[in-house]
Formats: sequence, structure tokens, C-alpha cells
Amino acid sequence: MTKFIESVIITFMPSDQAISFATLVRTRQDDICEALSSIDGTQFQLDDWERPGGGGGHTRILQSSSFEKAGVNTSEVFGPISEKETPMFSTLINKVDDTFQLTKKSHFYATGLSLVIHPKNPYVPTVHANYRYFECNNGLSTIWWMGGGADLTPYYINEDDITHFHRVHHDVCENFQPGSYANFKQACDRYFFLPHREETRGVGGIFFDYLCNDYTVQFNFISNISKAFIDAYMPIVEKQNDRTYTKEHREWQSIRRGRYAEFNLLYDRGTLFGLKTNGRIESILMSMPPKAEWQYNVVPTKGSPEDAMQQLLKNPKEWIH
Amino acid sequence: MTKFIESVIITFMPSDQAISFATLVRTRQDDICEALSSIDGTQFQLDDWERPGGGGGHTRILQSSSFEKAGVNTSEVFGPISEKETPMFSTLINKVDDTFQLTKKSHFYATGLSLVIHPKNPYVPTVHANYRYFECNNGLSTIWWMGGGADLTPYYINEDDITHFHRVHHDVCENFQPGSYANFKQACDRYFFLPHREETRGVGGIFFDYLCNDYTVQFNFISNISKAFIDAYMPIVEKQNDRTYTKEHREWQSIRRGRYAEFNLLYDRGTLFGLKTNGRIESILMSMPPKAEWQYNVVPTKGSPEDAMQQLLKNPKEWIH
Repeated sequence: MTKFIESVIITFMPSDQAISFATLVRTRQDDICEALSSIDGTQFQLDDWERPGGGGGHTRILQSSSFEKAGVNTSEVFGPISEKETPMFSTLINKVDDTFQLTKKSHFYATGLSLVIHPKNPYVPTVHANYRYFECNNGLSTIWWMGGGADLTPYYINEDDITHFHRVHHDVCENFQPGSYANFKQACDRYFFLPHREETRGVGGIFFDYLCNDYTVQFNFISNISKAFIDAYMPIVEKQNDRTYTKEHREWQSIRRGRYAEFNLLYDRGTLFGLKTNGRIESILMSMPPKAEWQYNVVPTKGSPEDAMQQLLKNPKEWIH
Repeated sequence: MTKFIESVIITFMPSDQAISFATLVRTRQDDICEALSSIDGTQFQLDDWERPGGGGGHTRILQSSSFEKAGVNTSEVFGPISEKETPMFSTLINKVDDTFQLTKKSHFYATGLSLVIHPKNPYVPTVHANYRYFECNNGLSTIWWMGGGADLTPYYINEDDITHFHRVHHDVCENFQPGSYANFKQACDRYFFLPHREETRGVGGIFFDYLCNDYTVQFNFISNISKAFIDAYMPIVEKQNDRTYTKEHREWQSIRRGRYAEFNLLYDRGTLFGLKTNGRIESILMSMPPKAEWQYNVVPTKGSPEDAMQQLLKNPKEWIH
């Protein structure tokens, strides 16, 4: 055990790029936790953990009167790539560079922030965001990329709120690269889709991966977009958090959260990757809804707000014109 | 459309074996529904459906004061095997006979009973059972097999109840084939296992598949074991259904039902097969728990009944000596 850790320390050093990205996500984690805590004054529960193979994470969990379950986590994991893991990492890496060869000296490093906020009030949407950096050194050169996104899952439609969320993300994307919002928005609708339900998980947002051209430009983009998350989401919480709701609204929220659970366990790459690679279960499944419900053959009354929500998920629309 | 249906009728006839198995599962469905309804007098909701490609099903749903959600379904699906479906069916069929070749004239037929009962009272275990028959004709010959099983998922340990459930199944298995219970019990523990949690879904029962030696002997076994289901489960319901429970017991039940949902969506072959082959969503996901809960890092108090339950799932034991 000691010997193994020594060998990791000796043979592996994250790049300056990796270190600056890791610092960024820790800063954003603090800012986002502070913003969420300010809503009702409840503090996050801190849970730091170490990964036996190398690295660890900072899990932040909030359970308060406003947030039924919120997790804002960062992690930094690294280590040698074992022979068993080589095919999996190769598939991933070859999406960015199909000439990059993994060797016996290969090491990976991954860091990121991942958050899922499940509010109590059914008028406040659930939100998910993720900002991540990956690099791999094969003893000869380093390959790296960034990915991430943010998406909103309301239980009831409020067009202004949804447009606001998209608008904030749109503006940062267009500032980064004109035309990128449309691509990232489309990728988001495509990714957060449940084929068996023929519906999207929520009303989308942005989703991007394998950004690997210019570190500084992209770092600034991730820095801005992760900062903008607070501007995109918190005003919605502030606006809707005190709205009165009924037991029926909560029931609809639970039913929709069943679909959220279905997506995460059936399709979400991060979840399935984490479970397959013996990741830390509690951190991976932190994204699961606090409560979910499966009733037989739920069909909302035609013309009801619940029906409108469901129809919207079957026909994703454009929010920015 | 009409033409397609005609061609199915002309080229495909289920065998006598298939018809007698289908009749058996319909009879058992009626018997089991009647037994469950008798507990508090609530009748099952009937939902019959047709499969566009051929066949259909009889869904029976119960939501009552005793049963939060129970589904007892039979289905009979058949049709030509398309080119797209050939690899999937080949893999399945070759487990029984690796020389059997699918041709363009190949048709399949599958029938079975599938039930999942999620009671309200946390002292009454959830139960699942399934009895199924599959056959395929390639224009030259027919291949067929049977499979099934029954397994119990309690929230609190009652050793007498668990032993009773196993004992009833044991006796029918040993009557069918001495030594089979031990094999079927082991297969059950192996199948209903959540690797990421390192625990079984419940306390097991029996699980068997690809029985294809002697139709009459095996038909009698399935007939007896499906009949024995009522004797194995109903006395437990009758004994525990009126026990007093608290909100905390219900919460533990919800947490455990989260694990049940995880198993079904991450690992259950039937669920994943159904979703991949565009099966009827409501019938496939009928097995999902009525309500499930995911809290962060739940660790039952050492020595509590909840802790005992969790420990048992991590160390499956023998119930019949």
C-alpha cells in the first residue's frame, strides 16, 4: 500500500492546467454553496473523502426547508491507468485524438464540480450542473479536454424562468464563441433524453464535451459559465421559493422525480461510469432525487399544468430568439 | 398493416406446448389476484393491451390499503424475428442450443406471468415472481425453454417468515428434482445482487432458466411452483399485515425501495430487455416501487433492526438445513 502511493507520487504530477482548473472548481463550489445557504440560512454538511487509488473529493450536502436535497461536489482523482482500465480510457481519449496511445506509464487526472439541487417547492425547478477537466499523460505527451453543462428540470412551466436560465447561459456561450449556444443547447436536449418515455429529462440548458483547443480561452469560458450558474438559477429560487403549493403538486413532483431517477440509472454516462469504475457510491448517487414515485399509467388531465409540462418535454422548444 | 397481420396469422401457430403454458399462467394469474384481493376486499384494476407486432397482455393492478402497488401481469407476445432482432435472439437461443440457426422464416413466441407486490406495511415483505415460456421456430424445427422464480424482499427480518417462504419453494423443487433447490437458491442470490452496494436485493428464493429437457415434467414443476407461490407468500401477509408501524419504519421501507429501483433499472435483464425492445413501458415498469427515497449516506444505527436487515443482505444465509 505504502509502496503503491509512493510510486504514484513519484511518477505523476498534475499539470499546471490541471491545478488551475481544480482551484477554479473549489472556488465555484464555495460560491455556489454560499448562495444556496443564504436562501434559508442552513449550512451545508461537509464530507471530505479520499480515493484509495489517488485523490479524493469534497462533498457538500444541504438538506433544508428550501432544499430537500442538494449536493455540490468537487473531486480530484488521479492515478496510473491499469491494463484493465486501458480499453475504457482509450475509447474516451480517442474521441479527442485517435492517434494517442496509452502506454504502461500512462496516468490520468480528472477534476470537476458536479451539483444537483432538488428543491422542496414544486414551483422551483431541479437543476444540475457539471464542469470538468480531464488529462492523461502517457510518458511522452499529455492530452486534455474540458466538458460540462447545466440543465433545468422544472415541474411546472414558467416561461420567464426557463428563458432566463437559457438567456444567461446563451450570453456567456456567445461571448466565448458565436454560435456555440445553439450547438450546446441541442447537445443538451439530445443527451438528457429518455428514449423509452420519448421525452427529455427537463427543459435543457447547455451541454458540451471534449473542448480541447485553447486552454486559456476555454478556462475563461468555464470560469464564466460556472459563475453565471448562480445568476441563472438563484433568481428563480428567490422568485418561486415562497409560492404556496398543495399535496397534489408535491405528488406530481415525485412522479417526475421518478423519471429523473430513470434517466440517471438507465442512461447517465457519469453515473454508469462511476458505478462501473468502483467510484464512491454516495457521491455518484447524490444526484438521485430525495423522493420518487411510480404510479401505474399516470396520465395528466388534458389541459392541466401537469399535462402542459409533459407535452413540453415531448417537444423541446427554443427559448432564445 | 392488415397485410402484416395476415402474414403473421398464416405463417405462425404457437405449439400445443405454448398454448398449454399460456393457459396455465392465466389460471395462476386469476388465483393469485383472488388471493391478494381477499386480504382487504379491493379488486384489481384490469388493463388488457395488444402488441402491434403480435399478441398482447393482461395487466392487473391493485392499489389498496394493504397493497401500495401490486401488479400481476400475463402476456403472450409473438411474431417474426426481424433481421435487426436476429443477433439478440441468437444470443438467447444459443444458450440452450448453439447449433440452432435462425432463418428468415423464424418466429418467436413468449408467454409468462410476472408479478411484483409492494405492500404498505413495512413488516410485510415485497415479493416478485415470474414464470415464463419461450419458443422459436425457424421453419425446420422448434426450440423452447422455461424459466422463472420467486424472491422475497423484506424490510425487517422475521426469520420464521423467510424460512417459510424458502421451505415452500424448497419442497416443490426437491419434488421436481432432488438437489435443485440448492442450485436455484444460489442462482437467485447471484442474480438479485447489486454489485455497487455489495448487497443482495432481498433474502432470495429461487431463480431458474433455460429448463428444456422434458416438457411435461417441467410443466408440472412450473404448475406446482406457481401454485405454491400463494402458500409461500400469503401466510406472511396475513400474519404481518395488521402490525403497527411508525413513520420511521415507512421511511426505512422507502430507502430500501430506492435500492429496489436501482436493481431494476441498472441490472434487471427483463427490464432492460423490455426497454430496449420497445416493450410496453407501463407493464415493464410496473415492477418499480410505489415510492422510493434517496438520502445521503444512510447508515442504520449499529444493532438496530434496520442494521440487522442490511447486514443480512450483505451476507446471504441458508434458510433450509
